[in-house]
Amino acid sequence: MELSEDQLIEAIARVLSGDEPGVVVGLGDDAAVVEAGAGEQILTTDLLVEGVHFDRGSISAHDLGKKSITVNVSDVAAMGGSPRYALVSIAVEPDVAASWVMELYGGMRDACAEYALSLVGGDTNRADQIVVSVAVVGEVAAGRAVRRSGAQPGDLIVVTGSLGAAAGGFVLSRQHPSKAAAALSEPWGRELIEALARPVARVGEGQTLAQAGATAMMDLSDGLAIDLSRLCRASGVGARVDLAAIPVSEALRGGAPSLGVDALELALGGGEDYELLATIDATNVALARRELNARFGVPLTEVGVVVDEGLVVLDVDGNESPLEPKGWDHFAREKDPRS
Amino acid sequence: MELSEDQLIEAIARVLSGDEPGVVVGLGDDAAVVEAGAGEQILTTDLLVEGVHFDRGSISAHDLGKKSITVNVSDVAAMGGSPRYALVSIAVEPDVAASWVMELYGGMRDACAEYALSLVGGDTNRADQIVVSVAVVGEVAAGRAVRRSGAQPGDLIVVTGSLGAAAGGFVLSRQHPSKAAAALSEPWGRELIEALARPVARVGEGQTLAQAGATAMMDLSDGLAIDLSRLCRASGVGARVDLAAIPVSEALRGGAPSLGVDALELALGGGEDYELLATIDATNVALARRELNARFGVPLTEVGVVVDEGLVVLDVDGNESPLEPKGWDHFAREKDPRS
Repeated sequence: MELSEDQLIEAIARVLSGDEPGVVVGLGDDAAVVEAGAGEQILTTDLLVEGVHFDRGSISAHDLGKKSITVNVSDVAAMGGSPRYALVSIAVEPDVAASWVMELYGGMRDACAEYALSLVGGDTNRADQIVVSVAVVGEVAAGRAVRRSGAQPGDLIVVTGSLGAAAGGFVLSRQHPSKAAAALSEPWGRELIEALARPVARVGEGQTLAQAGATAMMDLSDGLAIDLSRLCRASGVGARVDLAAIPVSEALRGGAPSLGVDALELALGGGEDYELLATIDATNVALARRELNARFGVPLTEVGVVVDEGLVVLDVDGNESPLEPKGWDHFAREKDPRS
Repeated sequence: MELSEDQLIEAIARVLSGDEPGVVVGLGDDAAVVEAGAGEQILTTDLLVEGVHFDRGSISAHDLGKKSITVNVSDVAAMGGSPRYALVSIAVEPDVAASWVMELYGGMRDACAEYALSLVGGDTNRADQIVVSVAVVGEVAAGRAVRRSGAQPGDLIVVTGSLGAAAGGFVLSRQHPSKAAAALSEPWGRELIEALARPVARVGEGQTLAQAGATAMMDLSDGLAIDLSRLCRASGVGARVDLAAIPVSEALRGGAPSLGVDALELALGGGEDYELLATIDATNVALARRELNARFGVPLTEVGVVVDEGLVVLDVDGNESPLEPKGWDHFAREKDPRS
């Protein structure tokens, strides 16, 4: 890196400058100071490691910066809250160009603008592989945060949007360059890569689901199968999932033959969709679906029902089998546990 | 690692369990929810990287965990605030023992107990080198946070405690094992290693200095010379430092001949002391010193004066020379810029 730590911090401060509402002290001091309002605050953090969560060859610094904020915002969205402030720590190899780091922060700034939060502080360091660590503070009305633990037997299980596109993009990014280039000449190929590199956090959707009476909610970061098993464990319930109902990404369906993957399997086990998974009383589903569609143009799909215990899937022929909670485990030794 | 990500999170949740005041939702959900009070909140984050900030051979997992919280608490202290909540993200190699990770979190828990804050969330990941990223939320009465930018010409420059012991411990830890073992048989050797491995955050001291009228304040993480230069730049002022007045650690003075270092140089350029550096009007210094001594038994030493511009040191013979802002730069290519 051709800049000193201080020069870099100053450069970052310039990229991020501007009077942020509610920020008393922002970048450049020991710590950031923000006004505290009424209600409750949401605190979350997520760390992205090169070679584990991303490869520099597959994602631009701008997209990586944007994604690092977005995945934290998604956690706030999954509680039904609003993001307010972000803190960022990064570690980079000494030979990473300062321009790469600035693009990274540019992406963060853009995500902060998109989701209406302020980047108020951080830390920069050296390491052998790039690490981006983000913490986000959000807010929610007192008592209104939607946890994972509130699912009740009889509740319907719903997901926003469609599933599997990011996992499809991951598979595509790992293919032979000539094959990947061919895929990227197709609309489905571009859509899959876009889903992986530029996820969207469902902030308004999470608030709408909370208002509509969601009993439990989480974001789909590690895949429907493993994330639903976590929600059920936290709630002390089981689930029956209807495989035919899973809203598999159309782009993934289109590209699956070329990619040599099973689209449904990726939709069930692939991570990084950042769609919301919620449980909700059957009487509230229609309202929630109408609101999500009217306000955000986002579909809400029933994929199953909460039961007393056990995790099972119902296939298209009506046969029941255990739901295997496979998904993305960041401690797995293999780089690609999704395949 | 012999545990899955979920098993590890559950194990960590057990270590940290307990009803924490003000925590609505703690570990194990998408995000933590905390009550927001009146006043302002302080948000800070710091990331420790193996091989850059620590070596596993030189610090126990427990000490590392405690230190990772303490250095963030120190940033809150440097604003005159009180720490309240911590978020922790870690990345570890797949072959790191789960017991090591649990000891790390045990150290974090102990630091949280010592400084009265709650660890409310986090993230665990895989990486090729260990990364510990901590974010801390603190609070302070509205308008009372002490920034770096308030120093006025004529203010006295003060520091808490003594300086250079942690840098001495760093030098000691890098010596030949037989020489290091000999040093560790001496009280000064143990004290230097202790200073490096178990820093103390000056929370009450920071609040006392704030109440006594400190005009600017920061913690000494990178060394007096570089940190004072940052404070002066933020305040748009200069400083004249009296070298003879610098409170060099007694242990460092005692060990300097054996270590082959210049004690004053380490006290000026060595990092990780986590003492507080403040500027304060001369009329308020006596009160601040009395309060710090009475409440915490911690000395407050005048090391210089704020001037209009320029950074100079006055040596024991009364000769002026420029203060070189040398210190710890985390982007430096060398592992040991202190030597």
